[in-house]
Amino acid sequence: MKGTLLYGPGDVRCEEVPEPKILKPTDAIIRLSASCICGSDLWPFRGFNEVTEPLAMGHEYCGIVEEVGSDVKSVKPGQFVVGSFCLSDNTCPHCRFGFQSSCEQREFMQGAQAPLARVPLADGTLVATAELPPDDLIPHLLAVSDVLGTGWYAADAARVQPGSTVAVVGDGAVGLMGVLSASQLGAERIIVMSRHQTRQQLAREFGATDIVTERGEEGIARIRELTEGVGADAVLECVGTEQSMKQAVYAARPGAMIGYVGVPHGVTFDGQELFFAQRGLLGGPAPVRRFLPDLMDRVLERKIAPGKVFDLELPLDEVAEGYRAMDERRAIKVLLKTS
Amino acid sequence: MKGTLLYGPGDVRCEEVPEPKILKPTDAIIRLSASCICGSDLWPFRGFNEVTEPLAMGHEYCGIVEEVGSDVKSVKPGQFVVGSFCLSDNTCPHCRFGFQSSCEQREFMQGAQAPLARVPLADGTLVATAELPPDDLIPHLLAVSDVLGTGWYAADAARVQPGSTVAVVGDGAVGLMGVLSASQLGAERIIVMSRHQTRQQLAREFGATDIVTERGEEGIARIRELTEGVGADAVLECVGTEQSMKQAVYAARPGAMIGYVGVPHGVTFDGQELFFAQRGLLGGPAPVRRFLPDLMDRVLERKIAPGKVFDLELPLDEVAEGYRAMDERRAIKVLLKTS
Repeated sequence: MKGTLLYGPGDVRCEEVPEPKILKPTDAIIRLSASCICGSDLWPFRGFNEVTEPLAMGHEYCGIVEEVGSDVKSVKPGQFVVGSFCLSDNTCPHCRFGFQSSCEQREFMQGAQAPLARVPLADGTLVATAELPPDDLIPHLLAVSDVLGTGWYAADAARVQPGSTVAVVGDGAVGLMGVLSASQLGAERIIVMSRHQTRQQLAREFGATDIVTERGEEGIARIRELTEGVGADAVLECVGTEQSMKQAVYAARPGAMIGYVGVPHGVTFDGQELFFAQRGLLGGPAPVRRFLPDLMDRVLERKIAPGKVFDLELPLDEVAEGYRAMDERRAIKVLLKTS
Repeated sequence: MKGTLLYGPGDVRCEEVPEPKILKPTDAIIRLSASCICGSDLWPFRGFNEVTEPLAMGHEYCGIVEEVGSDVKSVKPGQFVVGSFCLSDNTCPHCRFGFQSSCEQREFMQGAQAPLARVPLADGTLVATAELPPDDLIPHLLAVSDVLGTGWYAADAARVQPGSTVAVVGDGAVGLMGVLSASQLGAERIIVMSRHQTRQQLAREFGATDIVTERGEEGIARIRELTEGVGADAVLECVGTEQSMKQAVYAARPGAMIGYVGVPHGVTFDGQELFFAQRGLLGGPAPVRRFLPDLMDRVLERKIAPGKVFDLELPLDEVAEGYRAMDERRAIKVLLKTS
């Protein structure tokens, strides 16, 4: 079959790879209904992470179960499933505490930019729908697997409440999903930092009430102005750079939590500064599994349409163009047609 | 009157100072029923903070209102009051959000190691009792002003829940109050890091179920062992050094919050490490005012006896010996008799 391999910075290829096989009795093989490219795929693509051997790319997925290992009990061939990019047993103490992304057996999904993928820990990871969903819902269900689940976790970690004023740092796909999540959680006011018109428009569709185009100190000042000098009740940090984190910390009011889901690169916090600023932090890889049933229901009931975040669809063999389009910010998020 | 001044590292003196006066119409003057020395007083005493002019020491207080400024409405002369070490108007947006320690008008109390003290922002800061409390409750009410309020905030920020397993880093007065607070909040298991027998004993009186005498990596390993490899549901960091913070972070389970109330000295956090460890942080100067009415009630109803933390009583003119006793860890916390 065709699959996606990253050979090094800027060098991603769709090429012939072996079909995945059941390697452990807890594995499942799924046939992907669609796949996509994640903002985090750009870190190695941009050379921020060393690539020592070709990486099988792709960790967002939904599709039909083809085959299951002998220990798999909760899903069976023919069912439509969505899984998290973090693979988890969903039974260990960390999973039971709602932090499946720190599962004792945690693995990260890989090789999902392909028509078939192996899903380890299938019982703990996959959630099946009652029936096969209609085709038009596929992009929305795919979005649940990571990008929406991550935005949702940011809002959850930031403790967005009904009536909250929320600031979202980052207008990438995760930031936009953060806007949608905050809106679903009842935020009254959602301020998003964005200077790209198409992203601003989508942010508004997802529930943003205010757009801040300024960055850095000016962006912070603008958010403080919009909140009458107070700062936001909850902040979602969806980028991961030093500058974006600083904006997040100072866009927040004292006592607010910052839910941060952009993988931090070059970010440090000074303990005493954070102490006197009195801002709270909770982040990490999103425990999407915790939110999966609820988010799938919201999609199936057509309450949310997170798949609008895909603004470019490409066939799998054009995956390299997809990476370039996202890298150059020509596309927010690229959906890959795998069949 | 006599008052306490810090001239430089190791040089604290009880000497003649002018009596405090109402300087603003929002001030009150109180006659202290007792005062005490705070662990944070040791930072400048130990030379960690530069002292450019003599500092009027003391920020924990309770006593009888002597005089109030013309704008003060909520307390009157003759009433017994307790106030927070953080002075706040209790009406600004930060106060209403429960973070009075970030009040827009915030000041820090000073000069309370003396028989009389000026309390700015009296209406927002002071809470009066219905009647004059019996003498034996004075130490317990005094403890509410900072040390208990701070331990309570650590437990609140760490989100201690009924049934939680809690780890407390630090067996100083604040750590011990953290134990008491966690116990009051329903923690099922309270692990305290302590290698001092008298402090261990007091910790047990306050509700500690397990004592860890190891420090550093070994201390972390011991807490993980006690929690079957999981880590604590909530961690209270009550020291503020790099080592203690590290212990706090790694004593916590993924998804846990660390409530940190020891003023960080030389502490930095690596964003990516914290991200993948998935530990949450919230700290800062405690918004004691939020908890004051509840904590005063618990004392007045004799549900808690936080004043047990005072294991040395000295007359005010022996304040220097009090600092030395705490600095050398001969005393946990020193109560100063101000009359």
